Amino acid sequence: MQRISFAEMHCSIAQSLERVGEWWTLLIVRDIHLGLHRFDDIAENLGISRNLLTRRLETLVAGGIVERRAYQKRPPRHEYHLTEAGLELVPVLMALMAWGDKWVTPAGGPPVRLVHHECGAEFTPRVCCSECGKPATTADVTALPGPGAASGPGTRVLARRSGLAPEGS
Amino acid sequence: MQRISFAEMHCSIAQSLERVGEWWTLLIVRDIHLGLHRFDDIAENLGISRNLLTRRLETLVAGGIVERRAYQKRPPRHEYHLTEAGLELVPVLMALMAWGDKWVTPAGGPPVRLVHHECGAEFTPRVCCSECGKPATTADVTALPGPGAASGPGTRVLARRSGLAPEGS
Repeated sequence: MQRISFAEMHCSIAQSLERVGEWWTLLIVRDIHLGLHRFDDIAENLGISRNLLTRRLETLVAGGIVERRAYQKRPPRHEYHLTEAGLELVPVLMALMAWGDKWVTPAGGPPVRLVHHECGAEFTPRVCCSECGKPATTADVTALPGPGAASGPGTRVLARRSGLAPEGS
Repeated sequence: MQRISFAEMHCSIAQSLERVGEWWTLLIVRDIHLGLHRFDDIAENLGISRNLLTRRLETLVAGGIVERRAYQKRPPRHEYHLTEAGLELVPVLMALMAWGDKWVTPAGGPPVRLVHHECGAEFTPRVCCSECGKPATTADVTALPGPGAASGPGTRVLARRSGLAPEGS
């Protein structure tokens, strides 16, 4: 499969995909979040090859999303845990799960229910505004160039819109 | 790159990745959302090969996320627009963008600012509870097996936790 790095793209979605866009990566984060911390358990739950899981875990550790913790010295054994960045990625997964529950519902209905401790209710994750708390939908939101906008790949369209880059660039 | 279908996995994250997990797919959704509706414009903005873009757009159309609309008859020409499912995916992208802004900030800072029409403020997308409206974080949420939970790949861990599947399954 063709693979081009998104590293040069001035876009935080592209930068995020650079870290978590690989096949399996988000499912590994899901499994660790659900309490699977050992290599064998993750491999078995996902039905993923050991080689592939090794590579994906290395990427996640290098990307600061997962950390290895020794739980035994002789022989050395490690567990995998989410870092703070990894923990903050989980709500994004919950939002993706809600989208999947609605638009690509697995047979039998949603496989997972979520309960919110704060209010005690079963809930649907929803993307909201940090300022007013109301839902943020495409009809409700305008994207404008930010401080890191550039005319490089990925943000030309926004840069043009604001006059940062000429039409022909 | 190894590619195993997630189609059999009882998990709405896996099912979502089956539709939108391919390289570039989410960036194509982003570009269409930002107003690029023509093949050449998307190809140029992303710096993606025409072959690859053709395949990804076909996947997105087949998955019900993007639709082709004729805008000219002779010769036939089409534009690409987001379907309702595609539009509802955009807030998930906004949440991923916010994660990227914080954890993998592109040089110069966040490339995009978002303004919420509802309140008029620049905001950070946040994943919240549909019932109480407060943020949903890993510390705040418990995942339980839903109606579609099964002992198949991907949800064994949750099924076990609730006694739906034996430890050895």
